Amino acid sequence: MLKRYLLTPGPTPVPPQVALRMAHPLVHHRTPEFEQLFAEVQEGLQWLLQTANDVLILASSGTGAMEAAVANTCAPGDTAIVVNGGKFGERWLKICHALGVRTVPIEVEWGQAVTPTAVEQALRAHPHARAVLMQASETSTTVLHPVEPIAAVTRHSDTLLIVDGITAVGATDMPMDRWGIDILLTGSQKALMLPPGLAFIALSAKAWRCAEHARVPRFYFDLRRERKEQQRHTTAYTPAISLIYGLHEVLRLLREEGHAHIFARHARLAAATRAAVQALGLQLLAPTAPSPAATGVWLPATINGSQLLTYMRDRMGVDIAGGQDHLKGKILRISHIGYVGPFDVITAISTLEMALARFGYPVELGRGVRAAEEVLLEGWPTPRQPS
Amino acid sequence: MLKRYLLTPGPTPVPPQVALRMAHPLVHHRTPEFEQLFAEVQEGLQWLLQTANDVLILASSGTGAMEAAVANTCAPGDTAIVVNGGKFGERWLKICHALGVRTVPIEVEWGQAVTPTAVEQALRAHPHARAVLMQASETSTTVLHPVEPIAAVTRHSDTLLIVDGITAVGATDMPMDRWGIDILLTGSQKALMLPPGLAFIALSAKAWRCAEHARVPRFYFDLRRERKEQQRHTTAYTPAISLIYGLHEVLRLLREEGHAHIFARHARLAAATRAAVQALGLQLLAPTAPSPAATGVWLPATINGSQLLTYMRDRMGVDIAGGQDHLKGKILRISHIGYVGPFDVITAISTLEMALARFGYPVELGRGVRAAEEVLLEGWPTPRQPS
Repeated sequence: MLKRYLLTPGPTPVPPQVALRMAHPLVHHRTPEFEQLFAEVQEGLQWLLQTANDVLILASSGTGAMEAAVANTCAPGDTAIVVNGGKFGERWLKICHALGVRTVPIEVEWGQAVTPTAVEQALRAHPHARAVLMQASETSTTVLHPVEPIAAVTRHSDTLLIVDGITAVGATDMPMDRWGIDILLTGSQKALMLPPGLAFIALSAKAWRCAEHARVPRFYFDLRRERKEQQRHTTAYTPAISLIYGLHEVLRLLREEGHAHIFARHARLAAATRAAVQALGLQLLAPTAPSPAATGVWLPATINGSQLLTYMRDRMGVDIAGGQDHLKGKILRISHIGYVGPFDVITAISTLEMALARFGYPVELGRGVRAAEEVLLEGWPTPRQPS
Repeated sequence: MLKRYLLTPGPTPVPPQVALRMAHPLVHHRTPEFEQLFAEVQEGLQWLLQTANDVLILASSGTGAMEAAVANTCAPGDTAIVVNGGKFGERWLKICHALGVRTVPIEVEWGQAVTPTAVEQALRAHPHARAVLMQASETSTTVLHPVEPIAAVTRHSDTLLIVDGITAVGATDMPMDRWGIDILLTGSQKALMLPPGLAFIALSAKAWRCAEHARVPRFYFDLRRERKEQQRHTTAYTPAISLIYGLHEVLRLLREEGHAHIFARHARLAAATRAAVQALGLQLLAPTAPSPAATGVWLPATINGSQLLTYMRDRMGVDIAGGQDHLKGKILRISHIGYVGPFDVITAISTLEMALARFGYPVELGRGVRAAEEVLLEGWPTPRQPS
């Protein structure tokens, strides 16, 4: 009897009330009932992305929205500046290569954030670059990149700022319109607490102008066609109906909570996790610009990280992500995005403490949990009438 | 966004695979399909109760099975010896009073177990007593009563031993036939990991002989009628169909795990909980005969226990039971029965540590968790290839 805990940065746990909503009997998508539901989630997504632009809903993973962003703004032969500081920065490069878009990578050490200066220099060197492509939160390295100052650079140029907000939107403040992001996209399986299968993408007026002239061949991801349909609260192709029911419930929950509380919740869990792993004597992968979505931790060199993670998952029931590519076996990534609460952090840290002990690493049991508790306690108010 | 944890000793959490099974489309109960299902759960229940007797399934709470036990064995004016060491001991008394059965209570201090000697003495003083009524695990005081030695006394007398096994069956060894228990009953919402709504009751040959002569008026709980139907794999009245689907899945899970592992699992979580609360300097309610189902803890006298529990539930999202009657506000009861794992114990202890701190009680954060971790670690094997 192994009770399972999903503490990976996507998919993330689905709240029971959302799972129930997704069990709603399927309705046909070409009906007034579904169009009403669709209109409501569209408005909720604008609230979530903090934008007056249309937020299009795609039946795809986040990668589909990334491809759509490039395909709808670039032409083969165009140049894109790509912030490459992890697995998902690399994905921008791969998409560009597949679509014939030339790339100017800004190489960033895994675990570090890009500097606005580096982007500014690349833009000066390539003033006709069609777009800067970046992650807000690079999930593979648990880094939060500085979107706001980079947007301050791009917004006065002809270059678009295209931001993969997959593990940022709904976890940290990412106001599309106020900052001047040209394309902001995200997916369903992160802060939105849904199963994978939906992606969301919004384009500024400046980005839509590019879309009219983009010459990458595209059909499913042709956002002009999609916008035309979605402005009438329907979709070009079959929508993922049950996920949209779930999305409706998620947006209700999130709006009830409010932006400030949502961001504070993620910040608190992230801070508790960082304090805990440092109290255990472990090093953060991204100490200077940590993501609110997940915390990367260097494992002791004596520990085989892959074995440790397998042990945690198969013996202890706790699924924590490891590293990718050259970080595989060397780090773990504790997620705290989405439907995750204080006791998920406690569970992750307790798992880590016990697993390290089982693997012979000298660890003081309870020490990481204590550090997490000290941070978490600050988030609970003093009782009204303490006895 | 408050993530909720149910750590009360009934209802207990329902495993997701069981919840899914209960969503099975309803089938009519007078069909071969349902009778097949019913036959399989009957056989599984015999395995669970470790008995060759028929185990009858009632659509009722556990209290219904308690009433059925008395109503089918006693006549008005009969005498029953009642072990009264908590809220559920009192319930036996109330049932007897309602049905006109005279009672000889053995008063046991809340938090203590009855002694077999006390039962022996009561039996000597009342040799014609129809039955001894007791709890195996008294949920209100988190005490485990000594059923086996008491059964050794009753089995050679004309008196029946009737055991409420509601928080014992499926949590600790309670072999009905080997020990010579005459009636063993339990409910669905404890170790069986189901929602409330089903009760189970098995009678020995000696108990069935009494049932033929019992003269308490009864209709719904007439077990003779129920046995006649259930021997044909159907029920006298409408069964709780969806719960029986869930039961089928639960019994599959439990049999896959096996008796020894089930009991070891509960013992491990109980031991970890006891170690943790003692490490926090708190006293156990039942130090000498602790139940495997839940651990009762005396709260510091300076703490208003009702406020503390409300804070834990409403602010922290963790539902832990308090005390009943004269223990209300003075104790809490941490459940570890049913679909509960090591990280539920960690969550309960972490909640307690932080809540005590918030209420101004001097507590060393992490100390209880560490003590729990030390016990829990013993249950995880050394990795095959520690690095």
